[in-house]
Amino acid sequence: MIEGEEEVGSKSLEDFLAKNRKKLDADALVLSDTSMLAPGVPSITYGLRGLNYFQLEITGAAQDLHSGVFGGAAPNPLTILAELIAKLHDRNGRVTVPGFYDDVASLPRAERKALNSLPWKEKDFRKTVGARDLNGEKGFTVVERLWTRPTLEVNGIWGGYIGEGAKTVIPSKASMKFSCRLVPDQDPKTITRLVEKYIRGLLPKTVTAKFEALSTGKPWAAPYTHPIFQTAQKALEEGFKKKAVFIREGGSIPLVTQIYDTFKVPCVLLGFGLPDENAHAPDEHIRLENYFGGIRAVALFYQKLGEMQAAPAR
Amino acid sequence: MIEGEEEVGSKSLEDFLAKNRKKLDADALVLSDTSMLAPGVPSITYGLRGLNYFQLEITGAAQDLHSGVFGGAAPNPLTILAELIAKLHDRNGRVTVPGFYDDVASLPRAERKALNSLPWKEKDFRKTVGARDLNGEKGFTVVERLWTRPTLEVNGIWGGYIGEGAKTVIPSKASMKFSCRLVPDQDPKTITRLVEKYIRGLLPKTVTAKFEALSTGKPWAAPYTHPIFQTAQKALEEGFKKKAVFIREGGSIPLVTQIYDTFKVPCVLLGFGLPDENAHAPDEHIRLENYFGGIRAVALFYQKLGEMQAAPAR
Repeated sequence: MIEGEEEVGSKSLEDFLAKNRKKLDADALVLSDTSMLAPGVPSITYGLRGLNYFQLEITGAAQDLHSGVFGGAAPNPLTILAELIAKLHDRNGRVTVPGFYDDVASLPRAERKALNSLPWKEKDFRKTVGARDLNGEKGFTVVERLWTRPTLEVNGIWGGYIGEGAKTVIPSKASMKFSCRLVPDQDPKTITRLVEKYIRGLLPKTVTAKFEALSTGKPWAAPYTHPIFQTAQKALEEGFKKKAVFIREGGSIPLVTQIYDTFKVPCVLLGFGLPDENAHAPDEHIRLENYFGGIRAVALFYQKLGEMQAAPAR
Repeated sequence: MIEGEEEVGSKSLEDFLAKNRKKLDADALVLSDTSMLAPGVPSITYGLRGLNYFQLEITGAAQDLHSGVFGGAAPNPLTILAELIAKLHDRNGRVTVPGFYDDVASLPRAERKALNSLPWKEKDFRKTVGARDLNGEKGFTVVERLWTRPTLEVNGIWGGYIGEGAKTVIPSKASMKFSCRLVPDQDPKTITRLVEKYIRGLLPKTVTAKFEALSTGKPWAAPYTHPIFQTAQKALEEGFKKKAVFIREGGSIPLVTQIYDTFKVPCVLLGFGLPDENAHAPDEHIRLENYFGGIRAVALFYQKLGEMQAAPAR
């Protein structure tokens, strides 16, 4: 199956799956859209965060205003948007939307221990980020923050004059794109409702607001108990000559949830990219050793699947 | 004198004036770059706010990051910029930069009364702005806020993904353009120093910052006691068949301060635009009645100046 809407939330897939339920029936989903934990660590991903993507436009004056003639008495949507954003996290890095964490499943102690014991180095992660320091939600390790905790991130912001030099304008409008990464058992529709309600309540009466949910995607985490996972692990280890591990990821693949919910099949996520390869940024690339290791591992995996006894797939 | 750098702070003028001090010697400055108070109210402006224009760029990660892979642990410059902006005003609409108001001259009671008694209607101003409500510094009337109080306004903001649809990015950089309108006796250089120091102190250690002052301009307010002002008032009243008033304005004209400081001559600011004519915004325009009224008034003014006795100009 080739699906080309992944980056816009796989909006057409759900209907397509429902309509072609029988034709698409299969024993498992095998997908390569995730990452390896680190160089030399082939990985199978068993959990993904969901993603709700929003857009907000706020309007103050009926048109752009001269900041000399009107500055000091007219509402400035840029400042008002900034003041809104500043209220969306508390001092501990937690999202302040009431009810946001209500449905977050607590992480079993064994899983928490396993995730924090993976061959993953915070030092390398810091180097990849390249900022002077990290931040995030207090009380959780970096791995827990990335894979098991929900977020609210501003992805884009614009308004007013953004060209070369100076223009003394108080713009009529200010906008932002922002998104929430979701974790089990948060429900995307509930989160959208909570976020919109909270934001509308925070805005002052000087402005109006247009709130849009551009896409929503459920979080996913599933046990890796089906025999196919052990087969995949063996194929990875033979293909890479390295120990393979089970990991979660912070990214979102709505397709996985939709297939999992529709067919109840095991979903085997074999990824060969690395976190420092600039995904979604300029100069995105992939290391050749993982490109060829991936080819070997996937070939071995399909060979081993052919050798597996015809076992009930679900 | 034709000067074409007004919108970028008249940077070259100061040197030019110093070099051509003798050649440019004159009895007065007459300039049309201000507004009328309201339709049917010809106006002479005797005070302008100064203007410092700044640009700030903050950088978190070394490159744009995928918000799934890094979200929750990597610093987001958009959020950090918003949190900074939110700290620049307090609940009463006052700028929080320490020392910002230290040099603001208090308004004499008589002038305060005169300005608040002008034929100016807040209702009309509200209509021009077209927002659901006004805002600004508590404890001051709208006219006082616009003409006699300093401001800090964000004029532009940008960062991250701002195109159609969704992109799940945590950008490396976030930027804003912002400016301060200044009033007597604030010193632009002092204000620049205070603003930069305060902003650098507010930013968290996760980001670096590039702060630039793109232009600075002194505030100006001068008594209108020289006989030329009465001549101008008469010319306006004859040209428009209406009573003319003395006003201040919230805008900034660095040229006026530079000429005033260099030549110590009376500066007569006769403007014929109106505040609702979209200055610095799309569809900027001027009413024809003021265009023709202005032509009549200025012709009469020059005629009367020629009739004036040769009096010492300063």
